[in-house]
Amino acid sequence: MTSESTIRDTRILERIATDLSEIYEGVFSPETVERYVFESYTTLSRTAKIRTYLAVLAERFATDRLRALAIAQGHIQTGVPQVLFVCVQNVGRSQIASALLAHIAGDHVEVRSAGSLPGSEIDPSIIEVLHDRDIDLAGAFPKPLTDDVVQAADYVITMGCGDACPIYPGKRYLDWELPDPAEASPAQHNDIIDQIEDQVHELWTEIRN
Amino acid sequence: MTSESTIRDTRILERIATDLSEIYEGVFSPETVERYVFESYTTLSRTAKIRTYLAVLAERFATDRLRALAIAQGHIQTGVPQVLFVCVQNVGRSQIASALLAHIAGDHVEVRSAGSLPGSEIDPSIIEVLHDRDIDLAGAFPKPLTDDVVQAADYVITMGCGDACPIYPGKRYLDWELPDPAEASPAQHNDIIDQIEDQVHELWTEIRN
Repeated sequence: MTSESTIRDTRILERIATDLSEIYEGVFSPETVERYVFESYTTLSRTAKIRTYLAVLAERFATDRLRALAIAQGHIQTGVPQVLFVCVQNVGRSQIASALLAHIAGDHVEVRSAGSLPGSEIDPSIIEVLHDRDIDLAGAFPKPLTDDVVQAADYVITMGCGDACPIYPGKRYLDWELPDPAEASPAQHNDIIDQIEDQVHELWTEIRN
Repeated sequence: MTSESTIRDTRILERIATDLSEIYEGVFSPETVERYVFESYTTLSRTAKIRTYLAVLAERFATDRLRALAIAQGHIQTGVPQVLFVCVQNVGRSQIASALLAHIAGDHVEVRSAGSLPGSEIDPSIIEVLHDRDIDLAGAFPKPLTDDVVQAADYVITMGCGDACPIYPGKRYLDWELPDPAEASPAQHNDIIDQIEDQVHELWTEIRN
């Protein structure tokens, strides 16, 4: 166990919680924000292989989740549709779909992704193939599905994990049948990404109409 | 997708959140309690195979987590040591260890268990072997490791998943080497439970001295 680094992380997490509490003053209680930061850290701890950046990832995860919650509760008005992609590991399909939709729709949509059983890192071959298409996945990391991102979504697209996602009224749910890149060779990744791109284009056509 | 049942669950979860908010009035904000209930539900959704009792399990999980948080923050004084067992799936070793310690120490200890990658149900063979020893695991269910139960613990015992657990100062951390019942035949479960029992007795001797 790396006890020294996690005790150091605790101090970093407390600082992150203080900063985020200031940003969300009047929206969320400092208690709620602190819980989000510490639970985000522990949740990522469970599946992380590399622990060096755990506090950094927890900060990003907690920041994204608090924003989603603020949107879900009407504290932030984005004016654009909120789309959530969910697959099993959040290392392949849901990452590809969210990167493609963000690439196609730009600022006209807000995209999130999550996994029912998050893996430990994005598949490097997928990062490479997307890079060749001028799409940068470098900052992405696998995240478990949380309630806040489901609540924030107008569109929820599940890929291979339909039942893992709670159903709330007033949202559009879609389930896409797609091959899993984790079970395909890197040579087949281009084809799978093409398939996902077709689906994403269709979705974007539906969303903006 | 079972959309009708989850929309019904949403109403049940709102009622659970209201009830728990009343219990924790002045301790936790209704907002924090609601987040605990909905996040507990979504977390269990991710790995649950049987969805019928999901709202019931989410209520128990959220109730247990809020109690752990209240203990960690000094709002509840139990006067007894708090022990947390963590294994990978929370379907075997950590469930056995917590059941045995609760059996041996009774009200003189408060015991929790969790997993880094929770399975979907407790191994039935283990329930049977423990039943033959007059220990009832019927109400137990696999739960992911959360920050609140780590914060509440005086003793954290990891079994096969050391790095998944955040390290906080002021707690006693132990890592037990034990065979995994999931990789053993049911005929070997008795032996594994005997080994765990020896370790639990040793731990209890340490705790009460």
